[in-house]
Amino acid sequence: MTVTQYDVVVLGAGVAGGHIASRCSEAGLSVALLEHDGFGGTCPLRGCEPKKVLADAAHTAERLLNGAGRGVTGSARLDWRELMAFKRTFTEGLPDRIRRYYEKKGIATYTEAGKFAGPDTIACGGRLLKARHICITTGAATRRLDIPGADLLVTSRRFLELDVMPERVVFIGGGFIACELAHIAAVAGADVSVVVRSDRLLRQFDAELVDRLREHLTGLGITFHMNCPPHRVLADSGSGKGTGKSMGGGMELHAGDGRFAADLIINASGRVPALEHLDLAVGGVRTEQGRGSGGIIVDSQLRSVSNPVVYAAGDVVRRGMPLTPVASVQAEVVVRNILEGGGHAVEDNVTPYALFTYPPLAAVGMLEEEARNSGRSFDIVSGDAASWSEYRRIGQTCAGFRLFVEKGSRLLLGAHVLGDGAEEMVNLFALAMRKRVTVDELQSMLWAYPSFGYALKYMFR
Amino acid sequence: MTVTQYDVVVLGAGVAGGHIASRCSEAGLSVALLEHDGFGGTCPLRGCEPKKVLADAAHTAERLLNGAGRGVTGSARLDWRELMAFKRTFTEGLPDRIRRYYEKKGIATYTEAGKFAGPDTIACGGRLLKARHICITTGAATRRLDIPGADLLVTSRRFLELDVMPERVVFIGGGFIACELAHIAAVAGADVSVVVRSDRLLRQFDAELVDRLREHLTGLGITFHMNCPPHRVLADSGSGKGTGKSMGGGMELHAGDGRFAADLIINASGRVPALEHLDLAVGGVRTEQGRGSGGIIVDSQLRSVSNPVVYAAGDVVRRGMPLTPVASVQAEVVVRNILEGGGHAVEDNVTPYALFTYPPLAAVGMLEEEARNSGRSFDIVSGDAASWSEYRRIGQTCAGFRLFVEKGSRLLLGAHVLGDGAEEMVNLFALAMRKRVTVDELQSMLWAYPSFGYALKYMFR
Repeated sequence: MTVTQYDVVVLGAGVAGGHIASRCSEAGLSVALLEHDGFGGTCPLRGCEPKKVLADAAHTAERLLNGAGRGVTGSARLDWRELMAFKRTFTEGLPDRIRRYYEKKGIATYTEAGKFAGPDTIACGGRLLKARHICITTGAATRRLDIPGADLLVTSRRFLELDVMPERVVFIGGGFIACELAHIAAVAGADVSVVVRSDRLLRQFDAELVDRLREHLTGLGITFHMNCPPHRVLADSGSGKGTGKSMGGGMELHAGDGRFAADLIINASGRVPALEHLDLAVGGVRTEQGRGSGGIIVDSQLRSVSNPVVYAAGDVVRRGMPLTPVASVQAEVVVRNILEGGGHAVEDNVTPYALFTYPPLAAVGMLEEEARNSGRSFDIVSGDAASWSEYRRIGQTCAGFRLFVEKGSRLLLGAHVLGDGAEEMVNLFALAMRKRVTVDELQSMLWAYPSFGYALKYMFR
Repeated sequence: MTVTQYDVVVLGAGVAGGHIASRCSEAGLSVALLEHDGFGGTCPLRGCEPKKVLADAAHTAERLLNGAGRGVTGSARLDWRELMAFKRTFTEGLPDRIRRYYEKKGIATYTEAGKFAGPDTIACGGRLLKARHICITTGAATRRLDIPGADLLVTSRRFLELDVMPERVVFIGGGFIACELAHIAAVAGADVSVVVRSDRLLRQFDAELVDRLREHLTGLGITFHMNCPPHRVLADSGSGKGTGKSMGGGMELHAGDGRFAADLIINASGRVPALEHLDLAVGGVRTEQGRGSGGIIVDSQLRSVSNPVVYAAGDVVRRGMPLTPVASVQAEVVVRNILEGGGHAVEDNVTPYALFTYPPLAAVGMLEEEARNSGRSFDIVSGDAASWSEYRRIGQTCAGFRLFVEKGSRLLLGAHVLGDGAEEMVNLFALAMRKRVTVDELQSMLWAYPSFGYALKYMFR
């Protein structure tokens, strides 16, 4: 078998892997980059990017509809076929372009999956790749549901490729993906149900604002079913409802005490590190719980605790949130450790994040419960923002905020914002938290007027 | 004549005057607040606020139209009558509500204009008000054009109250007001010309981005005429064109070598401190150029250099830009000086500002020319942003940025952004400038993804 020696072998060409490969190659190292499922990875091909294309279209349509009676007359609806064609202008051909980009940099690219053949060796197709450093950046994949009929379920990936929006769509799960896609499906005209195992929707966000958003989404026609664990999926072509746009034969989800007829059921119950086919045991790479469903156990420098040849970054590491910007920052830490022989630890970064329903919901820092558990003393500054001119002007009735301000220091422990511009406001708050700017200084500053940044003054009046 | 003694008499109940009156009253001082033209002043009644209602409606309509072929189908147009009715929900009754709010605080309000009757005395109606401190916060008004027929011109105030959008609208001037209102008129369907005395449009903004925006606005049907000083206005009811929606008889503007037929001509050639009827000479209050068209001459604590009883804040002071947030900050400086017996100087604040066309254009810090004149050495980081996913997704083809980054320190000297979200990006840059955050640290940070804040990373790739 051919054995090729590289300085760095990177498994997975998503945001993290691509960054590591590029930077190491630019620094003069020999690099192999392996990706069997599209160079670029989840974010640009079947995650954030295509989702935001659909979410922005929904936002555009809803903004117009909210303008009714407010001086803007017209109509708006999503044309799903056209929207999908437009989405493909962002994704089609991208894996090839990205691969060629890496090739041009002198990176050896492989389109077969790799797996460990030894602590410093990866088997890929008929080859063995030996490396001084192996980086695991294979990302995450949908957690399989262990219930009868689970093979009838599809994932977010399929949703983002639908040629036709089915009449009845059911999402299993209560996280980012379920909520974002449910919102898009509802705006596109589907009859949408969201079935959630627990009593908590969107646990990464402020519970009060989530309640507010849920109420709003319910008004758009989405039905939420809480405390409703799924236990069976049945093919049920005899279902009376929804044959009009059905995908050819309905299905039925049994969950909690209910039965949910559907033309499409999406398993959005969670994502787990995609490590199954890597033969990690052969590489001596330990994972949490030792079952391959947990993340790779790394030290603060993102190096495997059981195999010093191995680094890991992005969603395969359960450290920080599974977000694109987090993966980028972790990848850079790995790069520095490779190029400078270690010494760079992951910082505890302030991480703003957003849910792209319309309106969006965004957060940075601690949740209320975390703030309470931190033992710090804090004030809650909160309110309904629907009366702000910013929102009245565009007919946005779903808006609010909750800030946790430490007593004494007047620094933000956490900031949660619901409404148009929420994702920009948490960026401002993130910079303020990082640079230890008090809320009083924020209020005293000049901001473009009117703007969502300026609106933070309204939070304190 | 009745003589009433107050601690503080405030002339003008706009953003600055209202703030001073409230704060001083809350601190236990006796306060009189005089306003003959609507409590609240320009910003909420006939400036920023109503303008942004119209601008947001235009934005909504254009965003929908830009979605054509991108998955959003529909139609959108401004319904001017409905839009004006909606605008009135923001402005109507507001002066009374604001006045009652001040009265409730125990502030004595007067609806007559005041003028100086002595260094510490204001005549108002049949009364004399004597004060320990007099604050001049009367704002600005449209500069009158000294040309024949000038009485046929109207101001932005009239534009914001039009029941019907005329067919042909001409703006005289090339600043914020002319461009923002021209954009609204064009989206509302008017045939719009902008006639500019000099060769420079929007001189507060980056010239290259202004060129880009001008090209875009031209595409919306606005015609710009540069180097075109106005010299005469004629009533010309015989004008053949545009009788359909005309206001009853056209007009003609003679400017440069051209003649512009119009149904409405708006003088947006500039605003000057509104000091004409204050009898400043009687109060011993000096103004620049001594002609009443310049601002009140104040020291760094905003106290009149010629009469220590008098403070001034907002647009009557030619210090900082004539913007609402600047007026607020200056007002607070005056409050502190009154309450604490002086000692508070106006800081040189970082001042982000935005032009609300669609797309918006925004800026913070130095213009390129200012950066060059500062003697500092800097790099220009600039580009076309229309290819960013942020803009491609919503069909925005007019977007760009220009940053001036000091060599060595890597701090921003100035930042200029054109495109959706520009006003939020300059807020982030303003906070970065204030806290001396380098562009490298900005790039290394985590931002909500995708967001316009995150997009600053694209500026440096």
